[in-house]
Amino acid sequence: METLVNNISIEKSSSSKIGSVDFDNLPFGSIYTDHMLVCEYVDGDWERPKIKPYANLSLDPASKIFHYGQSIFEGMKAYKDEDGQAWLFRPEDNHARLNISASRMAMPELPKEYFMEGLTALLQLEKDWIPTTEGSSLYIRPFMFASGVGFHASPADRYTFLICLAPSGPYFGGKVKVLIEEKFARAANGGVGYAKAGGNYAAQFYPTKLAVEKGYQQVIWTDDNTHEFIEEAGAMNIFVRINDTLLTAPTNDRILDGITRKSILELAKAEGIQTEVRKVKVSEVVDAAQNGSLKELFGAGTAAVVSPIAGFGYQGKDYELPELENSFAKRLKKRITDIQYNKVEDPFGWRFKV
Amino acid sequence: METLVNNISIEKSSSSKIGSVDFDNLPFGSIYTDHMLVCEYVDGDWERPKIKPYANLSLDPASKIFHYGQSIFEGMKAYKDEDGQAWLFRPEDNHARLNISASRMAMPELPKEYFMEGLTALLQLEKDWIPTTEGSSLYIRPFMFASGVGFHASPADRYTFLICLAPSGPYFGGKVKVLIEEKFARAANGGVGYAKAGGNYAAQFYPTKLAVEKGYQQVIWTDDNTHEFIEEAGAMNIFVRINDTLLTAPTNDRILDGITRKSILELAKAEGIQTEVRKVKVSEVVDAAQNGSLKELFGAGTAAVVSPIAGFGYQGKDYELPELENSFAKRLKKRITDIQYNKVEDPFGWRFKV
Repeated sequence: METLVNNISIEKSSSSKIGSVDFDNLPFGSIYTDHMLVCEYVDGDWERPKIKPYANLSLDPASKIFHYGQSIFEGMKAYKDEDGQAWLFRPEDNHARLNISASRMAMPELPKEYFMEGLTALLQLEKDWIPTTEGSSLYIRPFMFASGVGFHASPADRYTFLICLAPSGPYFGGKVKVLIEEKFARAANGGVGYAKAGGNYAAQFYPTKLAVEKGYQQVIWTDDNTHEFIEEAGAMNIFVRINDTLLTAPTNDRILDGITRKSILELAKAEGIQTEVRKVKVSEVVDAAQNGSLKELFGAGTAAVVSPIAGFGYQGKDYELPELENSFAKRLKKRITDIQYNKVEDPFGWRFKV
Repeated sequence: METLVNNISIEKSSSSKIGSVDFDNLPFGSIYTDHMLVCEYVDGDWERPKIKPYANLSLDPASKIFHYGQSIFEGMKAYKDEDGQAWLFRPEDNHARLNISASRMAMPELPKEYFMEGLTALLQLEKDWIPTTEGSSLYIRPFMFASGVGFHASPADRYTFLICLAPSGPYFGGKVKVLIEEKFARAANGGVGYAKAGGNYAAQFYPTKLAVEKGYQQVIWTDDNTHEFIEEAGAMNIFVRINDTLLTAPTNDRILDGITRKSILELAKAEGIQTEVRKVKVSEVVDAAQNGSLKELFGAGTAAVVSPIAGFGYQGKDYELPELENSFAKRLKKRITDIQYNKVEDPFGWRFKV
């Protein structure tokens, strides 16, 4: 495997779409920049990554991505500080997780240099696309899928890795209400829930649609066996504040090892907030809501950042959460975004200069 | 929704690849015919299906299929009888199951006429591609995927349905040995295991690869909670013969409702074979193997037809199955393929003339 040193071919787009974009009213993940990074895995090896104009992909209808869902992805963001310098947040952790997902989905691991140098070269070319409006950032989508062909249900012999960029506003608009799931489940024991595999997301669409029809934005998944324990929310990990203690479920083979989740845990400790990583019972959350000790619920994820939850539904009943002066969610969101946007020192070494 | 009556546009290929195909040595699912059926779902409605030359698809890199695994498929076969007439086997059941899968994956249902008329028109055009060699058939792959774009983890607004055809030999070559899984799992309670969703298949690749490295061809999945009960084998449902009784697990939300499975159950009853559809314990199969009452294990599925299993591994130990004179697998395979190839009467009304 070759070690790249910024020797990535760049084919520039003849014109830019950037002038047509309203950076003050960005949707989430639906406007794409002028270029993308493409890297092909052929004959057991990764070819050199290339930067090309953003354009359609041409694929054989028998490509296994269409049939067997062999795909993985990552979610990242680039931030711009007041001096116009671009930053990433713990990008090497995204690379490491991409390869954990790849291994579980029987896909080839991507060398770290290909990921880091490809990402850096693409961001340097597209740095004007990083929004500076409050709450906006450049969402980064690295993804890999089976481009090899065949109807035999077995791993493909060709894969394509891409990075696409989307200047984006907030993932959620307005207040977030969640439904604690009692029937459907997101992941099996011994399954692929801990991998950022495409199929994990499509599987959530229908139960989430049912929840949306009832007035909730997201589902909080519970374990598939007893539905007694809180797992994660699909697009984010879940934190529960009971009195002044912050709880979250331990990661396991059903729960994504969220980078925002683990950063929030470290920040909370640094802030002197009591944290407990342990199994969280639904009944415990409901009891706490009833006796007034449930102070906050919030989600944490790259797309959603830190999303306070205004209320939850469970067994046909709705529970509202108080609006707090001293909210952990607000405090921790400020701490993490201040680091991400280079507004404060970064004692953790999380920030990465592009 | 419009009701089609064979009014499907056909753009013919300028030349045929058929002359280059060795019909006596067909692989499974890796040679494709000259044409495909394509149908697009746009603005809340299905457009009229079109038959076109088999060619690459052009897709935006942000199409949700690449990111969220929103895809479903079916597997069918076309058979040719001695008079050159083409037949399908229970095609309306495939259509019904496609829509069950679509519903679970938050995808649009496909009208029955579009499926049946599209399939028939395509097969009439491609009938010369149906192999006549013993054990070969034209494998049919209807599939639907999210072609709409966006990085928001929610259902797409556009979908593409296709039917591609692949003249194919047997799915398995040689004897099949299976490993009864103790750690990994295929499906969650309340999950998507009963849907023919792409992601269910990619999730099996890694555990299957580990099994293949140990000398097995397939994994027999057990329930994700206790691993005590036999579920299915991913590419096929599983039948167990203990003494003269044929057992198979009941379908549930983790197990695919196989068309071959239910046909085999009906054929067995018609043959006077005692059948039991009930939960089957792994320990029961192991005990039967040890005391000699385990006579047969076989898989049943469209691709695999009826596949006798020569032996299985469990907890580090291998169990061999006897070769029987009066094998249920052999007998039922002959019964079902005789109907499929129009060699005998079809009292069940399963055969469908193309």
